[in-house]
Amino acid sequence: MSIKIALLGCGTVGTQVARLLSEKNALLSARAGADLELIGIAVSNLAAERDPAIDRALITTDAAGLIEQADVVIELIGGIEPPRTLIRHALESGASVVTGNKALLAEHGPELYDLAKEKKVDLYYEAAVAGAVPVVYAVRESLAGDSVKAIKGILNGTTNYILDEMTTKGLTFDEVLATAQELGYAEADPTADVDGFDAAAKIAILASLAFHKRVSLADVDVEGIRSITDADIEAATKNGYVIKLVATATQAGGKIETRVAPSLVPVSHPLASIGGSFNAVVIEAESADRLMFYGRGAGGAPTASAVLSDVVAAAAKKVLGGRAPQEIVLGESEFMDAGESVSRYFVRLQVADRVGVLAEVTDAFAEAGVSISAVNQEVDGQPGLAALAITTHAASAADMAATIEAVGKISDVHEVVRVFRVEDE
Amino acid sequence: MSIKIALLGCGTVGTQVARLLSEKNALLSARAGADLELIGIAVSNLAAERDPAIDRALITTDAAGLIEQADVVIELIGGIEPPRTLIRHALESGASVVTGNKALLAEHGPELYDLAKEKKVDLYYEAAVAGAVPVVYAVRESLAGDSVKAIKGILNGTTNYILDEMTTKGLTFDEVLATAQELGYAEADPTADVDGFDAAAKIAILASLAFHKRVSLADVDVEGIRSITDADIEAATKNGYVIKLVATATQAGGKIETRVAPSLVPVSHPLASIGGSFNAVVIEAESADRLMFYGRGAGGAPTASAVLSDVVAAAAKKVLGGRAPQEIVLGESEFMDAGESVSRYFVRLQVADRVGVLAEVTDAFAEAGVSISAVNQEVDGQPGLAALAITTHAASAADMAATIEAVGKISDVHEVVRVFRVEDE
Repeated sequence: MSIKIALLGCGTVGTQVARLLSEKNALLSARAGADLELIGIAVSNLAAERDPAIDRALITTDAAGLIEQADVVIELIGGIEPPRTLIRHALESGASVVTGNKALLAEHGPELYDLAKEKKVDLYYEAAVAGAVPVVYAVRESLAGDSVKAIKGILNGTTNYILDEMTTKGLTFDEVLATAQELGYAEADPTADVDGFDAAAKIAILASLAFHKRVSLADVDVEGIRSITDADIEAATKNGYVIKLVATATQAGGKIETRVAPSLVPVSHPLASIGGSFNAVVIEAESADRLMFYGRGAGGAPTASAVLSDVVAAAAKKVLGGRAPQEIVLGESEFMDAGESVSRYFVRLQVADRVGVLAEVTDAFAEAGVSISAVNQEVDGQPGLAALAITTHAASAADMAATIEAVGKISDVHEVVRVFRVEDE
Repeated sequence: MSIKIALLGCGTVGTQVARLLSEKNALLSARAGADLELIGIAVSNLAAERDPAIDRALITTDAAGLIEQADVVIELIGGIEPPRTLIRHALESGASVVTGNKALLAEHGPELYDLAKEKKVDLYYEAAVAGAVPVVYAVRESLAGDSVKAIKGILNGTTNYILDEMTTKGLTFDEVLATAQELGYAEADPTADVDGFDAAAKIAILASLAFHKRVSLADVDVEGIRSITDADIEAATKNGYVIKLVATATQAGGKIETRVAPSLVPVSHPLASIGGSFNAVVIEAESADRLMFYGRGAGGAPTASAVLSDVVAAAAKKVLGGRAPQEIVLGESEFMDAGESVSRYFVRLQVADRVGVLAEVTDAFAEAGVSISAVNQEVDGQPGLAALAITTHAASAADMAATIEAVGKISDVHEVVRVFRVEDE
């Protein structure tokens, strides 16, 4: 038996997928239980230069024609269109689809899941989240016997690399970004990465799987890392924290909270030591307790590893029958109000360096019902000013906002420099 | 549709499985696509005390009769018999089987895989390796598109706890073992854990899956932790290492090497920080590069999480059709000769404290072709003696054995105290 595979897109990941489908064909075919045959690679530009591993006879611009002959379609084009139309066409033609397209799934996943269900084919997307780290499998299959309470992850390698370089080399955001762009670690337009949207799409996908509710990109509260300064990093380091862009999905009392924000992670936390372009995901489940998965979150070969695992699974189902785990939607999604969100906080203030200011500030916290766990005072570079770093116990976002407003009105408080959330140990 | 589940064994894990099958029935049934119905729990002693979560009406001593009515049989008795006979009976009756029985699989896995294949049912065993950490899924499914080169893991929580306590509290092996037995962290007969056989069974299972070769417990080179002294731990710490019981499976040039041994792990290595009863597995794959998984390796609820994920998968296949990934055996297993095994080493010697000894020792290393990367000399507690700690570059076990023999013959070398393998960064 032979399984016909169509590849849409031939960029970094597509090239590795085509190469491995050829080089590892015997092993992958043995696992799938059928010969895996790459029948074509659809591209937009026939004349573009290609890696020598690509068989040019397979290249075509007729994506629709290619799709119609395939049992399994791999979409690695990226972006919303044409992938959305092409994936719909594949599912309608009875092919199972493997995609790494997080943006498409986070915005239009439900219509594709529904179509796959209707057509009795499967949609796989391990490569859409955390590259080679099998976190989609983990949430969808490995934890099918458990209840996920929270997922926290470092899901974007570019921002993790930038924060890492800022921390270890004392460089500014702009300096590191420029170097990252030169080295190809960051895109010419870095918005999706540095403003948090890439991580947000991924956490929306994981939240949907974990909680069996529909969560889209628009439901995620997103803050990026552009505004992080060397002073922020210095203050975090001094207080035993590392700044990480943390993507969070939690469900409590039936309400979902999804967020991407630069957060202070205690140095002893498993996410603190995840450096460079690595991704990591910590899952808190009711029975399993804490699990962590980590590995390469991007790159041609690691992402191709995830794509090909999905291809083997899709092909095996075509041979042996059966279906992939189906999307389960347990009722409407209910989201937590932003103000209800509970966290520890780290607040940096610039205040007048004189007796009594600290008491005024701590009074303001107490009046808003926010309990303080630590205060550090340092003389600021500027004459007559001092820097206060205040760490709180868990407080609601609403109480914290009220506190900050009250503190900002104290005449000896020159500036509320920064408010960060703090991850628990 | 209803899927009838039989539970064999009602110990710590079995009790949690029964509890969760009841408490989480709606969620688990939704994921399986069918009502999951626990039809009975087979035990050996009807009169034994049970957790209040157990419905006593389900308890029976007639395991065989129970099996014959079931679609899915969960075996949590442990040991070779009666589980082997009962699992064979279940597969022959057309039930899929979920087991956490590493010892059985590491010794008799192939006959059970063959029987399952013949009867067109499935055998699941996520709970057999690393408790809640989904490493069987990872190797069997998540990495189906890749080629695993090496697996290194901390797969036994009891020994990891003992080594951890010895390191952080300066206690002896016997002291920690006694406390661990009192606290229920170690068995009354701790042999399977402390002598490395539990970890060996697990790495044999993972090696079989990763390399598609049959690897049994008897193929694993096993060394436990009974002989680890506080002096070993002190020397490791001084040189930037942590002693861990590391289980290793590698394949190179078609030859497999599987080993469990106390090894020196650099403090910067991801396995170094895995403390207490946690398990962790690092997988090196060709495309994915390095992945790590970590979580609770034992305990009722975490292991039940893994069991129930397998139950959901087994039930879903009964509903939707299809099969679990089949055992793939790609030819005969070829094992590396013990002498060919390559590693870095750490050697501690007790020598006479006088000029010229160091030169004699390093000459002996050089003559055997073993290259030294570091030497640390310290005055020993005893007058006239010095302690040498020598770290080597990668060397074959045969060359290392020849070196140790030669060094042992030097008259000023009083004792070759210890030889450890050293993990790479």
